[in-house]
Amino acid sequence: MSTLILLRHGRSDWNEKNLFTGWVDVDLIDRGREEAVRGGQLMKEAGLLPDVVHTSVLRRAITTANIALDEADRHWIPVRRDWRLNERHYGALQGLDKAATREKYGEEQFMLWRRSFDTPPPQIDTDDEYAQTGDPRYADIEIPRTECLKDVIERLMPYWEGPIREDLAAGRTVLVTAHGNSLRALVKHLDGISDEDIAGLNIPTGMPLVYDLGEDFMPTGPAEYLDPEAAAAEAAKVAGQGR
Amino acid sequence: MSTLILLRHGRSDWNEKNLFTGWVDVDLIDRGREEAVRGGQLMKEAGLLPDVVHTSVLRRAITTANIALDEADRHWIPVRRDWRLNERHYGALQGLDKAATREKYGEEQFMLWRRSFDTPPPQIDTDDEYAQTGDPRYADIEIPRTECLKDVIERLMPYWEGPIREDLAAGRTVLVTAHGNSLRALVKHLDGISDEDIAGLNIPTGMPLVYDLGEDFMPTGPAEYLDPEAAAAEAAKVAGQGR
Repeated sequence: MSTLILLRHGRSDWNEKNLFTGWVDVDLIDRGREEAVRGGQLMKEAGLLPDVVHTSVLRRAITTANIALDEADRHWIPVRRDWRLNERHYGALQGLDKAATREKYGEEQFMLWRRSFDTPPPQIDTDDEYAQTGDPRYADIEIPRTECLKDVIERLMPYWEGPIREDLAAGRTVLVTAHGNSLRALVKHLDGISDEDIAGLNIPTGMPLVYDLGEDFMPTGPAEYLDPEAAAAEAAKVAGQGR
Repeated sequence: MSTLILLRHGRSDWNEKNLFTGWVDVDLIDRGREEAVRGGQLMKEAGLLPDVVHTSVLRRAITTANIALDEADRHWIPVRRDWRLNERHYGALQGLDKAATREKYGEEQFMLWRRSFDTPPPQIDTDDEYAQTGDPRYADIEIPRTECLKDVIERLMPYWEGPIREDLAAGRTVLVTAHGNSLRALVKHLDGISDEDIAGLNIPTGMPLVYDLGEDFMPTGPAEYLDPEAAAAEAAKVAGQGR
């Protein structure tokens, strides 16, 4: 039995500007920092204290983890970072305005790029200003030129099955601070969500999502959000689906 | 050949209040955060970019490293933390006002506790509010009840000879973000300073101090502060000594 806490980073500069972000290393805005503080408070109040944190190599996840852990008095725990926890690479869409993209390509194409399980956006040009060619943090890998959710799952799973499961196997409470799509990939695996249904799953930002895992590293029950109001809102939504 | 960068944390809440701090886990004040930003800028401007960071398990060093690395665009590098990089434990003096302590015990005793190489302050009571009994970050060690600089050197050296030297041996540029006395202990070793002379050494806060190390992990020349003004001030002081 071990505990896994998932935390999606708070609001970033490009969320605010409504741009496709992907692997571009934008910063949190103040509201995102406040979300991280709240995430840390929720963990502390619940007595759910991480023994180790895993983050992507992107600033918005790293800063969220730093702030939340500091707030929970767990700033001193071991830290692991890996590009495999990065957000989905948005290909040629990175840096584009979402509204303008929707306008230009139409609603259907726009939603396909955003939500399709296995259709990636067009590849980014290697000389695109957001292609991150030569970024030293990716010196040892081939940077993706675009990704669909299926691609994210493929590159994420070795990290789940390796470093994260090692920490869980050692009985540690593990915090994973990452992104909308890398966390959806993990939740898809843990909750056994189908390729079709995963499109409808949205993980709220800054709100710790807690799994109790069994010896097979799979959930022993449904995951729970630490925020009681959010949990109530989720419950209300589920109830509404039955009508 | 490898590069070692030492960075002392910026001004903390208890520096401001003039209290003995030691292992008490106080936060930086805004001025300390600004010092950390400046430290990161100096590394970035000098093109001296850490590949890995080692910190103590105390908030003021961790936050300094987080801020400085974020500023230098190196937030994504691997992180190692260890209690062996902690500040000197100030024993029963932790939490006491420095001016009041000087008044009560006299200048000579006060300076002995602050600067003696091998005379530690009185031991802290295990039920003292600052004894940190039960602090989970020290679950695997016996928390010191007081330390002199000699004690700091003894507990620091295994970490220098182990994890830090491993990173240096791998050719990594290593940033160590720590405290006045743990960094003095390291500088004493690197610069071969005597037990007597180390009392006179003060490492400025928030100012990266850079060593080029040879294959024996000892300096190939004098260490340099990245801040040109500070370097000039040091040079002026040295010149003044000759008069």
